[in-house]
Amino acid sequence: MVVTLRREVATRGQGDAHDITDIVAAAVTDSQCAAGIVTVFIVGSTAGVTTIEYEPGAVADLNRLFDEIAPRGAEYRHHLRWGDDNGSSHVRAALLGPALTVPFSGRALLLGTWQQIMLLEFDTRPRRREIVIQIVAE
Amino acid sequence: MVVTLRREVATRGQGDAHDITDIVAAAVTDSQCAAGIVTVFIVGSTAGVTTIEYEPGAVADLNRLFDEIAPRGAEYRHHLRWGDDNGSSHVRAALLGPALTVPFSGRALLLGTWQQIMLLEFDTRPRRREIVIQIVAE
Amino acid sequence: MVVTLRREVATRGQGDAHDITDIVAAAVTDSQCAAGIVTVFIVGSTAGVTTIEYEPGAVADLNRLFDEIAPRGAEYRHHLRWGDDNGSSHVRAALLGPALTVPFSGRALLLGTWQQIMLLEFDTRPRRREIVIQIVAE
Repeated sequence: MVVTLRREVATRGQGDAHDITDIVAAAVTDSQCAAGIVTVFIVGSTAGVTTIEYEPGAVADLNRLFDEIAPRGAEYRHHLRWGDDNGSSHVRAALLGPALTVPFSGRALLLGTWQQIMLLEFDTRPRRREIVIQIVAE
Repeated sequence: MVVTLRREVATRGQGDAHDITDIVAAAVTDSQCAAGIVTVFIVGSTAGVTTIEYEPGAVADLNRLFDEIAPRGAEYRHHLRWGDDNGSSHVRAALLGPALTVPFSGRALLLGTWQQIMLLEFDTRPRRREIVIQIVAE
Repeated sequence: MVVTLRREVATRGQGDAHDITDIVAAAVTDSQCAAGIVTVFIVGSTAGVTTIEYEPGAVADLNRLFDEIAPRGAEYRHHLRWGDDNGSSHVRAALLGPALTVPFSGRALLLGTWQQIMLLEFDTRPRRREIVIQIVAE
């Protein structure tokens, strides 16, 4: 059984994080599937998804790491192509990845207590960010 | 068909690596499923999973990369919240990711000969690390 | 329903990128499955897969990031084991990851317009790179 849902999250630019655990958990509950996997997929190439203990300190620490390895103000060859200013967004998103697959059982995501699903915006401007949530289950 | 298993691995702190290929392969064999995907999911936000040629040199090289981009001794805002000392663990785990999906066919994982599934502990103390192994198959 | 396909891509060494979106999309179309997930898995431990806006600038920017955090010319303990020169390849591949799961619906991959699936070679020599494309669908 396959259930495909789309959700939108309004983001405010580079470094803006969103805890989307409840959105994904609700999709699983609504599907009435008992056990399976849910794939969270970010549509677009300037945001990513992972899990983290979702509190402002840890999120800021992760953003600092990205600021260090892919500084927003550096020169990027991507800028030469389109006149964009979001080369840092593209490399960060490619490195973190657009997809996360989480198992569920008993209609509940098998996350840790201090482990949330986070959408991390990397683009330099606000976006309406589309997420596909797809459940593959018995 | 969905099969959900849980396994525990005792880890010894930051940088401790475990080749869990045999655990995952045994789960696939025991399921008696011919073909499908197996998702390996780390429960918790201070460890990660990937594949690597599992030999001490490559594992040490990967740990060095993490030491450089997220030094254990740096200041992390996460520390201010809980008095923890594992900010480096959180950012490393978020970057590497908690999930790996591997296809199998003929009841065998479709890995390369020199490609193993590795659990990498990032926390600063020993943990009993819970892994979910979930098979979705015909 | 599970469909397992294997494809080969000839690569030219470290930093060589390939847009494999069409290969994956064709696999989905040929499967005649309406909706499900497709897992792209790189067999071997010196290449990775992600999504990116596939244009030469963004690809070069991502390669520069890898050059900075895992320089090809640095010393790697992996070299001591086999006399290899590809320690940088192993750590880059472990960090980026060998697997990408993409949902599809209406027989089409649910990618963004400017989001392509990229195989990124990290090895220091040309390879015949094997990819497993596995579809799990209704």
